[in-house]
Amino acid sequence: MESNRYTRGQDMLSSIHGHIGEGVMEILKDIAPDFARLIIEFPYGDIYSRGILSPKERQIATIASLTTLGNAPTELKAHIQGGLNVGCTRQEIIELIMQMAVYAGFPAALNAILVAKEVFEELDKNKQPE
Amino acid sequence: MESNRYTRGQDMLSSIHGHIGEGVMEILKDIAPDFARLIIEFPYGDIYSRGILSPKERQIATIASLTTLGNAPTELKAHIQGGLNVGCTRQEIIELIMQMAVYAGFPAALNAILVAKEVFEELDKNKQPE
Amino acid sequence: MESNRYTRGQDMLSSIHGHIGEGVMEILKDIAPDFARLIIEFPYGDIYSRGILSPKERQIATIASLTTLGNAPTELKAHIQGGLNVGCTRQEIIELIMQMAVYAGFPAALNAILVAKEVFEELDKNKQPE
Amino acid sequence: MESNRYTRGQDMLSSIHGHIGEGVMEILKDIAPDFARLIIEFPYGDIYSRGILSPKERQIATIASLTTLGNAPTELKAHIQGGLNVGCTRQEIIELIMQMAVYAGFPAALNAILVAKEVFEELDKNKQPE
Amino acid sequence: MESNRYTRGQDMLSSIHGHIGEGVMEILKDIAPDFARLIIEFPYGDIYSRGILSPKERQIATIASLTTLGNAPTELKAHIQGGLNVGCTRQEIIELIMQMAVYAGFPAALNAILVAKEVFEELDKNKQPE
Amino acid sequence: MESNRYTRGQDMLSSIHGHIGEGVMEILKDIAPDFARLIIEFPYGDIYSRGILSPKERQIATIASLTTLGNAPTELKAHIQGGLNVGCTRQEIIELIMQMAVYAGFPAALNAILVAKEVFEELDKNKQPE
Repeated sequence: MESNRYTRGQDMLSSIHGHIGEGVMEILKDIAPDFARLIIEFPYGDIYSRGILSPKERQIATIASLTTLGNAPTELKAHIQGGLNVGCTRQEIIELIMQMAVYAGFPAALNAILVAKEVFEELDKNKQPE
Repeated sequence: MESNRYTRGQDMLSSIHGHIGEGVMEILKDIAPDFARLIIEFPYGDIYSRGILSPKERQIATIASLTTLGNAPTELKAHIQGGLNVGCTRQEIIELIMQMAVYAGFPAALNAILVAKEVFEELDKNKQPE
Repeated sequence: MESNRYTRGQDMLSSIHGHIGEGVMEILKDIAPDFARLIIEFPYGDIYSRGILSPKERQIATIASLTTLGNAPTELKAHIQGGLNVGCTRQEIIELIMQMAVYAGFPAALNAILVAKEVFEELDKNKQPE
Repeated sequence: MESNRYTRGQDMLSSIHGHIGEGVMEILKDIAPDFARLIIEFPYGDIYSRGILSPKERQIATIASLTTLGNAPTELKAHIQGGLNVGCTRQEIIELIMQMAVYAGFPAALNAILVAKEVFEELDKNKQPE
Repeated sequence: MESNRYTRGQDMLSSIHGHIGEGVMEILKDIAPDFARLIIEFPYGDIYSRGILSPKERQIATIASLTTLGNAPTELKAHIQGGLNVGCTRQEIIELIMQMAVYAGFPAALNAILVAKEVFEELDKNKQPE
Repeated sequence: MESNRYTRGQDMLSSIHGHIGEGVMEILKDIAPDFARLIIEFPYGDIYSRGILSPKERQIATIASLTTLGNAPTELKAHIQGGLNVGCTRQEIIELIMQMAVYAGFPAALNAILVAKEVFEELDKNKQPE
C-alpha cells in the first residue's frame, strides 16, 4: 500500500508539473531524500489524488494560497505552470491573483503577477520558432 | 459611474453573502462608514464582479487565502457560507481546506475545518423543524 | 546604567499606556518575571525612548504593524489606547487602519477596526455620567 | 504498511499528547474523518516517529514554530502540554518562548506566554487535593 | 466620477513616487492592465488622497506595514523612496524600522534596514558629480 | 552594567556565529550603528546568554522559527551555520526543517532545506584541499 501511495503521488506530480517536478526531486536527492519522498507521498499521493475537487480547482486553491503566503515564488511559479497544464487560462490566473489583493494585500498580488509574467514569458520564448 | 460601482458591489455582496453582508456594514456604519463603502466598492464592485472566473472558483480562491492567513475566522466563516451559496458542496469546502495543510500547515487547516464545522452546524440548526 | 534603562522604560510605558501597562506586568509577574522586565527594558527603555520620531508617529507605526500582523488584538487594543493618549484622534486611527487594507488585506483592516470600535466604546462608557 | 503508518502515528500521538489527542480526533470524526486520519499518518506517523531528534528537541521546535505563527493557540496549548509530557520543564518552555520575541516579535511571545500560563494553571488545578 | 478617481490616483502616485510609479505601471501594461489601473484607483485614488493623515504619516504607516510583512522588498524600496519624497528624513526611516524589531522581530527589521541602505546608496550615487 | 551587557552579547555572538556575526555588524555600521549595538545587546546579551536552554536547543528553536517565518533566508543561513557551530549535526538540521512542513507548510520547509544545502555546500567547498 505504501508503494501505491508513492506511485500514485508520482503520477499526480507528473500530471500537474511535467518534468519540472522531477527537477525538484533531483535537487533534494543528496541532501534530503526522505523529504523528496514525503513531498511525493503526502501532497501528491495523499491529497491531490483524492478527487472531489477538479485538478483546475485544486490549482486555483494552491495559487491563491501561495500568493497569500508571498514568500514562496519558486513554488508559485511551479503551480502557475501546473495551473496552465490542467486547464487554467492565463487570463484566469491573472484574475485569481488580482482577487488576492483583497485578502493578502496589493504587494502580495503584485509580486505574484510578476511571477506569472515570468512564467508566461518563458513559455512564449520556448514556443517561438528559431 | 461611481454610483454604478457601488450598486454593482452591493448586488455582488448580496448574491454571495445574503443578509450577512448587510450585518457587517451595519456594524461599521458609525465607526467607519467610508470603510464600509470601500468594502462594497473595491472587493465586490471592482473585483468580484469582473467575471472571467466563476463565482464558485472565486470562493474557492478566497477560502484558500483566508485559511492560509489563519487570522480572520469571521471572514472565513462568511466566505464558507458564501461558497455554499454559490454552489460549493460541504465536501468540496472540507477538501479544499485539507489541501491547505500542504501550503499553510496543519494548524491553519485544522482551525479552518473547525470554522467550517461551526458554519455547517448553524445551518443544520436553522433548518431543523421545531 | 541598567537600572536607568529600566526606569526610563517604566516612565515611557506609563506615558503611553497609563495603568494598563502595569496590568500586563502584573499578569506576567509569577510566570515570566524576566520577560516582564525585558518588555520594559527593550521596547520601552531602548526603543520608544530614543526620540527622533514623535510619540504620535511611533504609535502610528505600531498600530500599522499590529494591524498588519493581525494576530495580536490585545496588543493592538493597548496601542490604539496608547495612540489616543499621545495625541492621535479617533478619526486618524481609523484612517490609518483603513490604509492597511492596501498592504495587509481587507480582513486584517476590518478586524483592526473592530478592535478600535471596542476601545472607543469602552472609553465612551467610562466617560458617561451615572 | 499503510496500517503500520497509522498505528505508529497513533502511538506517537498518545506518547506526546495523552488523551487530548484523541479529543481532537473525536471532534473531526463527523466533519472530516480523512483529515483526522491524515493528522495521525503524516505528522505523527511519518514525521515525529523518525527519530534523529529527541522527543524533547522536536517539541522545542514545534513550540517555537507555533509561537512564531501566532495564530494557532489551541495547537500551541497542546504542544506545550506535549513538551511537558516528553521532558521539558516549565522554565525551559517559558525560556524558549521568550527567545521567540527576537524572531517573531514581542506580541507573538507575549501571547504564547499567556497560553503557557493557562496550561500551567490547569495542571496545577487538576493536581490539587480536594 | 470614475475618471476623477483615476486622475486623482495618478496625481497622488506621482507626488509620492515620482517617475518610479510609472515604471511599475509600464511593467504591468501587457500582462495585467486592469490591475495597473486598480492600483492607481484604489490605493492612490481612494485611500492616499483622503487627507486626515499627512503624507508623511501615511508613509510611516506604510513603511511599518511593509517592514512587518517582510516579503515585499520592492514595494518597501518604493515607499522608503516615497517617504523621503514627502518629508521623512533618513534618520526617521531607520528609526521607524528599528522600532519594528519589537513587533515583527529582528530579522524583519534587519532586512528592511538593508533595503533602506540600498535606497540611500542609490540616491547618493545619483547625486554625485562625475 | 550596560557595558557588561554589550560584552556578554559580543561573546555570545562570536560563540554562535564566529566571524560572520562581525560581518553583519560591519554592514550596519554606517547606516544604523545603534541597531547593530541593539542586536548585540538584546538577542545576544539579554536572551541567548541566559542559560536554562542549551546552545543547541536555542539554535533548534531559532531555526524552527526562521523556517516558519520563511522570509529571512540570510538570517536562517547564519543560524544553520550557528547550529552546526554549537553541536547540531547536518542530519538533525534537515530533520528539524522537515518537521516544519507540518506547521509552516511544505514550501517553507522546502525553501529552508535549500538554504541548508547552500550552507553545507559552502562548508564542503572551504574544507576541500586544493
